[in-house]
Amino acid sequence: MIRQISIPTPGKGLLDVTREIAQAVADSRLTEGLCTILIQHTSASLSIQENADPSARRDLENWLDRHVPENDPNFTHTLEGPDDMPSHIRSALTSTTLSVPIVAGRLALGTWQGIYLWEHRRRGSTRQLVLHLGE
Amino acid sequence: MIRQISIPTPGKGLLDVTREIAQAVADSRLTEGLCTILIQHTSASLSIQENADPSARRDLENWLDRHVPENDPNFTHTLEGPDDMPSHIRSALTSTTLSVPIVAGRLALGTWQGIYLWEHRRRGSTRQLVLHLGE
Amino acid sequence: MIRQISIPTPGKGLLDVTREIAQAVADSRLTEGLCTILIQHTSASLSIQENADPSARRDLENWLDRHVPENDPNFTHTLEGPDDMPSHIRSALTSTTLSVPIVAGRLALGTWQGIYLWEHRRRGSTRQLVLHLGE
Repeated sequence: MIRQISIPTPGKGLLDVTREIAQAVADSRLTEGLCTILIQHTSASLSIQENADPSARRDLENWLDRHVPENDPNFTHTLEGPDDMPSHIRSALTSTTLSVPIVAGRLALGTWQGIYLWEHRRRGSTRQLVLHLGE
Repeated sequence: MIRQISIPTPGKGLLDVTREIAQAVADSRLTEGLCTILIQHTSASLSIQENADPSARRDLENWLDRHVPENDPNFTHTLEGPDDMPSHIRSALTSTTLSVPIVAGRLALGTWQGIYLWEHRRRGSTRQLVLHLGE
Repeated sequence: MIRQISIPTPGKGLLDVTREIAQAVADSRLTEGLCTILIQHTSASLSIQENADPSARRDLENWLDRHVPENDPNFTHTLEGPDDMPSHIRSALTSTTLSVPIVAGRLALGTWQGIYLWEHRRRGSTRQLVLHLGE
């Protein structure tokens, strides 16, 4: 079973999409299986991160901002804006696909885990996720 | 088929869990299929790395120690200890889920590949893996 | 269904293998499903990246060259050459496995996405991919 989900992002940062993915799992009526998520972009990515304290996600964003800064004089791919090349590097360092087992009809995430769409462009946009739900 | 595996970790570093995963694959009696592993934590992660020379794993750990150091003055998420925020960043940079094909009843890893649980906290704990084994 | 693909690499850099993977998907005759790719090496990896402008891939390579340089005096794993230890770190930071949904008989990649084999050794070699294609 395939599901497509569109997620509007407000700009850079980690956006919790666990509820949207969990809804697709519930709709699939699978009790055991595997949910695979692909984000169809190279300037946004996926990560499973702590869903408790928002300060952890701010520090994650800040670490990437400092280690993959805009306006790096070594960048040559600059036509699409100063935040485009950092976005591709952030995407390569994080995840484009994730697979989460389904147990007892639910995503088998740990207690403190959430699934995040990580927007890397300053200006958000509508991001497309493709889900595969299988036994 | 779902399997849950508990792995006690002795502290920071890469711990070879290939044998435990391979045992679950053998128990599944699948000759061809896919084994997906999720680690249910955000301060430990997964990586497929070289299983030959332990010096490679020490250098991996050391590189992360230097690039994601404790006590970074920019961190605000510090209540859970100096090694907690680096753990989340290390987890984001490595993998929370991995999927390995099963061929002829075995994990189709390369000759020098092992599956590692990467503990990022100084003090180890018992880490939970959820495995999905499917055709 | 399992497929093994051998890819000769000319040396360091991102090599587009989308066509080879897409051919395996076509051969599988699956209309909906999941294609999982494992690279059986720890000094080469996988990444889904922009397939439009080659300058983005050069900048990705250059960023890794600067952040995971050869001849780091902290490295102890040096017997296999100066480019070996950086290769393992690059592999840990990028991906060893990827899973892409199949929709309408094709890889459900975004418009600008390609699947890349990322060779991290100076001297290329023949790299082995194992594909699992399932419903």
